[in-house]
Amino acid sequence: MAMIFDRIAVLGVGLIGSSIAHAARESGVTRVVQLYDADPEVCQRARELGLGEVFDDPAKAVEKAELVVLCVPVGAMAAAVEAAKPGLKIGAIITDVGSVKQAVVESVGAKLPTYVYFVPGHPIAGTERSGPDAGFAALFHNRWHILTPLPGDEREAYAAAVDQVEEFWRAFGADVERMAPDRHDVVLAVTSHLPHLIAFNIVAMAEDLESVTESEVVKYSASGFRDFTRIAASDPTMWRDVFLNNKDAVLEVLGRFSEDLAALQRAIRWSDGDTLYALFDRARRMRREVIEAGQDTSAPNWGRDRD
Amino acid sequence: MAMIFDRIAVLGVGLIGSSIAHAARESGVTRVVQLYDADPEVCQRARELGLGEVFDDPAKAVEKAELVVLCVPVGAMAAAVEAAKPGLKIGAIITDVGSVKQAVVESVGAKLPTYVYFVPGHPIAGTERSGPDAGFAALFHNRWHILTPLPGDEREAYAAAVDQVEEFWRAFGADVERMAPDRHDVVLAVTSHLPHLIAFNIVAMAEDLESVTESEVVKYSASGFRDFTRIAASDPTMWRDVFLNNKDAVLEVLGRFSEDLAALQRAIRWSDGDTLYALFDRARRMRREVIEAGQDTSAPNWGRDRD
Repeated sequence: MAMIFDRIAVLGVGLIGSSIAHAARESGVTRVVQLYDADPEVCQRARELGLGEVFDDPAKAVEKAELVVLCVPVGAMAAAVEAAKPGLKIGAIITDVGSVKQAVVESVGAKLPTYVYFVPGHPIAGTERSGPDAGFAALFHNRWHILTPLPGDEREAYAAAVDQVEEFWRAFGADVERMAPDRHDVVLAVTSHLPHLIAFNIVAMAEDLESVTESEVVKYSASGFRDFTRIAASDPTMWRDVFLNNKDAVLEVLGRFSEDLAALQRAIRWSDGDTLYALFDRARRMRREVIEAGQDTSAPNWGRDRD
Repeated sequence: MAMIFDRIAVLGVGLIGSSIAHAARESGVTRVVQLYDADPEVCQRARELGLGEVFDDPAKAVEKAELVVLCVPVGAMAAAVEAAKPGLKIGAIITDVGSVKQAVVESVGAKLPTYVYFVPGHPIAGTERSGPDAGFAALFHNRWHILTPLPGDEREAYAAAVDQVEEFWRAFGADVERMAPDRHDVVLAVTSHLPHLIAFNIVAMAEDLESVTESEVVKYSASGFRDFTRIAASDPTMWRDVFLNNKDAVLEVLGRFSEDLAALQRAIRWSDGDTLYALFDRARRMRREVIEAGQDTSAPNWGRDRD
């Protein structure tokens, strides 16, 4: 793999930031990785893990970096850019990994100087873990990475900057797709934001029940519930920011979900077995398509119950 | 492992029935496994797989069997018992694997002759696969098996029959727990029935959306949605019967889920970040408890993304 950037900076050393540091070293896309995190303990841990050159000041961390990757929660992006701005190199490329794009385009875009190039992005990759110890180089391998280039940026060098960011993620084994920011937010509201919201809701609900104890829920969770606990273990700050910053699309699809659930509730109440069967039967097809598209393993129970 | 029964009969050769046939052979709990399925193609496949002695008549299949395991959907149990009745041995033990217990106690209980012993049960084990090819011996290993003995059965030999059924499942590596039938139904409504209902609902909803295409949902499903497709791939007949036969408990917990979801929707609409954060943060603890209780693997993404 040829080197793409001499130095890159990663602001925010959580699951994604630390995975980028690992993948950058493994792939050889850059000579130096410069890191910053607002939490001194995370900086300390990043040093211990040898993830790169760790700085206590974001403006120092981005100095001389040809690519800056914003890996902080969506709600913290504008402040991170503001703090890093004094150190930004002329002609630097800025990208991010936020799960919401339109809000980031607006908030980060407003803070950036005119002498840099902003190429928003979102890796469709992750685990339920967070923090600097959670990262690993293969996280992006065979996963989609969505870039949402700014339609309004007509500078000649902008197209080349977008291509370089694309090349960067491809070097980590990702498949790159380009999309309009608002389109991204509608698609992800369905495939990611609503599923997480529902998982958080059912897990919190189960904890609050009076009729069934928490220890009973845990004990018999293998009958379905445990799958929801994995998704609901994701970083709460990141997810709070997602819902606050993709409100319209999430509320729209949540309304649809509730409407359909009410219809299902009615079918149960009136013992409408045909409606239930028809709906359950359709869901199988979607599973087959997900597996055929290489987006999940076909092993029963994801292979986790193998002895 | 000592032999517990000379002959057992398994009515219904799906995921659970075929897994019992495999586990029975592997554990040596019985000398002979006699099988019946209402679908001639399934019978044929059971013969090809060498799962046991396959019969075309349920009354023949249960002849001389000391234990009969009903492995058909909950709604088909009473008819299966009715058809098998002429062949039932005096003193035979009947058990089942239905996901609902109170309805089975009533429907099967009403059909059984007085000279047999009925010990209802439910293995908290399964995968999203169904049919005779889906079974494997280790399915019950380290999983809970709930027995719901009939409180009204005061015959002296009944307690011994319950103990034998318990020993049978323990021979497959299961942990056995006893519970009242109605209590089982309330607990499973939370841990299993509601999670499945929600998964079916979101998958069907995503298929129907006009704003996002099905191929987009599939393509970006790794961001959360794919987890729901696994659960929603479960057998539709089985699940239809679960909802029709555990109506009260499911509607009760579904009402609670919808109420909590409405509160979450409101928090998003009013940008109440503190409420969202507090709720998301709590969900992590439940995940830790599930893992500590040995009910799930701690590997990120269940280890399915390992290269």
